[in-house]
Amino acid sequence: MPSVYDDVMELAKRRGFFWPAYEPYGGAAGLFVLGNMGVKLAEKITRVWKDIFVRRNDFTEVDTPNLVPEAILQASGHVENFKDPMAECLNCHKRFRADHLVQEAGKDLKHGMDLKELLKDVKCPSCGKNLGWEVSTFLTMFETRLGPYTNSKGYLRPETAQGIFVEFKRIFETERERLPIGVAQVGKGFRNEISPRQGLIRLREFRMLEVEVFFDPEQPRCEMLGNSELEREVTILKEEKEKSVMLRDGIANGIIVNEWMGYMMFLAQEFLNRLGIPNESIRFREVPEDERAHYSKQTFDLEVNIDGYGWLEVAGIAYRTDFDLSSHMKATGSDYTVAVPLAEPRKEKVKRWGINIEKLKERYPERWKDIMKEYSGIKDRTGDIPKSIAGIDIDKDVFFVREEVVEVMHRKFVPHVVEPSFGVERLMLASLCHSYKVKEDRVILSLPSYLSPVSVCVFPLVAKEDMIRIARGYERRLKLAGFDTFYDESGSIGRRYARADEVGAALCITVDGQTLQDSTVTFRDRDTWKQYRVRDNMIEEEAARVVYQVK
Amino acid sequence: MPSVYDDVMELAKRRGFFWPAYEPYGGAAGLFVLGNMGVKLAEKITRVWKDIFVRRNDFTEVDTPNLVPEAILQASGHVENFKDPMAECLNCHKRFRADHLVQEAGKDLKHGMDLKELLKDVKCPSCGKNLGWEVSTFLTMFETRLGPYTNSKGYLRPETAQGIFVEFKRIFETERERLPIGVAQVGKGFRNEISPRQGLIRLREFRMLEVEVFFDPEQPRCEMLGNSELEREVTILKEEKEKSVMLRDGIANGIIVNEWMGYMMFLAQEFLNRLGIPNESIRFREVPEDERAHYSKQTFDLEVNIDGYGWLEVAGIAYRTDFDLSSHMKATGSDYTVAVPLAEPRKEKVKRWGINIEKLKERYPERWKDIMKEYSGIKDRTGDIPKSIAGIDIDKDVFFVREEVVEVMHRKFVPHVVEPSFGVERLMLASLCHSYKVKEDRVILSLPSYLSPVSVCVFPLVAKEDMIRIARGYERRLKLAGFDTFYDESGSIGRRYARADEVGAALCITVDGQTLQDSTVTFRDRDTWKQYRVRDNMIEEEAARVVYQVK
Repeated sequence: MPSVYDDVMELAKRRGFFWPAYEPYGGAAGLFVLGNMGVKLAEKITRVWKDIFVRRNDFTEVDTPNLVPEAILQASGHVENFKDPMAECLNCHKRFRADHLVQEAGKDLKHGMDLKELLKDVKCPSCGKNLGWEVSTFLTMFETRLGPYTNSKGYLRPETAQGIFVEFKRIFETERERLPIGVAQVGKGFRNEISPRQGLIRLREFRMLEVEVFFDPEQPRCEMLGNSELEREVTILKEEKEKSVMLRDGIANGIIVNEWMGYMMFLAQEFLNRLGIPNESIRFREVPEDERAHYSKQTFDLEVNIDGYGWLEVAGIAYRTDFDLSSHMKATGSDYTVAVPLAEPRKEKVKRWGINIEKLKERYPERWKDIMKEYSGIKDRTGDIPKSIAGIDIDKDVFFVREEVVEVMHRKFVPHVVEPSFGVERLMLASLCHSYKVKEDRVILSLPSYLSPVSVCVFPLVAKEDMIRIARGYERRLKLAGFDTFYDESGSIGRRYARADEVGAALCITVDGQTLQDSTVTFRDRDTWKQYRVRDNMIEEEAARVVYQVK
Repeated sequence: MPSVYDDVMELAKRRGFFWPAYEPYGGAAGLFVLGNMGVKLAEKITRVWKDIFVRRNDFTEVDTPNLVPEAILQASGHVENFKDPMAECLNCHKRFRADHLVQEAGKDLKHGMDLKELLKDVKCPSCGKNLGWEVSTFLTMFETRLGPYTNSKGYLRPETAQGIFVEFKRIFETERERLPIGVAQVGKGFRNEISPRQGLIRLREFRMLEVEVFFDPEQPRCEMLGNSELEREVTILKEEKEKSVMLRDGIANGIIVNEWMGYMMFLAQEFLNRLGIPNESIRFREVPEDERAHYSKQTFDLEVNIDGYGWLEVAGIAYRTDFDLSSHMKATGSDYTVAVPLAEPRKEKVKRWGINIEKLKERYPERWKDIMKEYSGIKDRTGDIPKSIAGIDIDKDVFFVREEVVEVMHRKFVPHVVEPSFGVERLMLASLCHSYKVKEDRVILSLPSYLSPVSVCVFPLVAKEDMIRIARGYERRLKLAGFDTFYDESGSIGRRYARADEVGAALCITVDGQTLQDSTVTFRDRDTWKQYRVRDNMIEEEAARVVYQVK
């Protein structure tokens, strides 16, 4: 029996939500097309996300490039860490994710195990033979070069986040230098999967919804977290045990490492609810340390249960600490710190170096003037003694170091970051699977009405000229009022209702014989199939009530 | 004196519209970041585009991948044609666009001229020397590989259009197989420019708004083109002469090759008007044949005049004929034709081939059964005689060819395509430059109010607790009503108004002493600086009137 997951995949292809890309060319694994219904659904999911994650919190939004120079992803650790284990069949030379092969062979895989050893008796899924495996690692970023020089390597971003981190200082400035600050980004992420075979779930190119919240690690309070948020119950899966935890308790007893993590968990659950996913199908899986990304101190994978698939990860919520900003600071020498004024200025001892001019003249009689010129321009002399000045190597003993007491007016620090990161395609899938219903052998996509790709269908009961004219007029009015409308006059009205239900159209309006007499139309509810009549001057109001309601 | 263009570039960076990407890493030519103001402006420009180009015409929308396998871009002609001439300085080995170097040296460049010859006496802009140039061509697509195999070459798409063409048949099916059909796509385009030095204008990664309209070349009427559209005057630049042309006349006398081109020109002008660009700053430059892209039979570049820059191309409107669909049909063998029922079935003579079984048995006594088995499965025998069947080469004289009369019920054809293609960053620039005003030494960004990144600012006159509380409440109400709001309590009210004007905020609302007494607030108009009082129960209505008005 096909599962809801299979049914949704079939429906999605047939009705233009999404389908595998480039089929006339034999397809391209891991790439999908969104059709008209899919574009609208993705857009509306993004809008709900923005309401909850951006507008509600007065966060800001940016859009940084997909293309990233290598130096940035070297600094962020991706060039070193964004790799998957790869196994190549020594007979047919097909390549696979080594860990997936082991798991598919029914073996238990633990961190640090020898993959080559585990693959010894595994047959190749492609040629069916077992002539052994070559195991290596594969960098799963798409590599290219920026411009016409061979050494100008670049990558397609594996996450939108690095763009935000690199640009942090300018964003912070344009937003008037206040913490906490949330920076959101909607955009593509890319991952050159070795062998993607899971339809919409494992993609080489996907839509991300990311927020980076920057906060002062010494002031980790999240003001948005009130009682109604703190009393939210979430299901946490930790060390293979599920338990229900109230956010307040989770934060208090350290299961959730800080308030911002807790608040993002609250918003994430709220968001999924708005996509029609009930709490009993939502859990936060704490990612064990050996599975966590290199930048994270705590990560929860947000998972949704899907009939016919199981638990699907739709988001990661990670405490990235100051890892990324500090990495870019180290790599560039740019100052990514934030300064907050101290309540009271503080006296601090600092070591400052200087040059003993007599010694300098003696040691570098011909160059001392150049050196002094450069030296006088160096304002901050609190770091290490320099090895050279003005390009001239200078002996250590020409310098002196003095301890001074200075008045410190500001506390400087690198902000810490909490990040919720969603994948749009997986959210679409979760939302579609949870709204897929069958009633009297007919499919109803019972999407929350504000998510429906088509908000209102308008039909003339029969394709007669007067009904067509009136129906077209109503459709135009509704479109002008901002609804996503669909007009159709072909086939029986029952067939048209069925087609509308299948794409989850929130509402059908039919112009019939009675309309010509009393200017009322038939409104039909998607989920109950109940019909009622509405006067034509109230069409927009009633449509708005149906389409924009949050149940 | 700085021009409007320079002023806008400075303002854009300072206030967070856009800035060059990755500056802490020394920058990356041709890549820009959109800040919060830029994201909102781009979003609103896209919304207006959708209203005009998609919703108005009941067109459909898709979203295809940025990554494209090589075979597709080979078929489309891009691998062969998407190249720029490149000149490398033989002294410092810097690389440049050869044609740009020639033009910057003040020389007249005509198609087919010898670039190496023209560069003979041109000095390198980088090292200042002239040791000669090596001239070659450079493929300006970003190359990568899809998956872990070295031979799986792919590119980042140079236009969104190819995704639409390859997927045409499935899109056509999900949209119920009717022509004409318009397919829109919003997404990134990529172009690996050799040496981009023009800020936001020449980008390696940019946002595109594209529509492909597919129509029957034997039924080229565009139903949307009514009198009010046909009477629109446009300025056409043809062979270096500008003239005003009424669309009706342009279509009638062949200056505009078909009605769909005319209709797209109408919509394009309408669109620019809605972005605040007046007709006198708009012209359609007909691209001469030798400059046109390889797929186009007619192209108009849509240009906007910008103070301090000159004429800037913001869109191309191209008649692509059946070039792309036919190319993909040839490359894949997939059927990209559309069949329309004929009014009356037509009798047609066709030649059909067959096999002379006696001869076959005689000539291939051991294999004839295999051959017949395969042969009986071949349905269409109207093409050329095959060279082999079932992998066996077969002599020509084993076949016969017979002429038959068949009844043809459908006319089959490859649809023709007209395409308007806009670049969002250039539209932003055009719109910003045309709304940049200076009044009493202060900058006002006089954007059409529905484009303003910030719709409504809410201020308490002074930062007193009661005023703050009321102002925050109003801001929340306006945000819930869908406005992009901004709340600010810091600094003098004059300073806050000035900051609001600078980003083009459509409206400022101030809570003051009188509010506490009579529940009215001050509304302030951005362009006139006029103030008037509004009762607090009318705030949303009056804000909507100001923000959503089309002047």
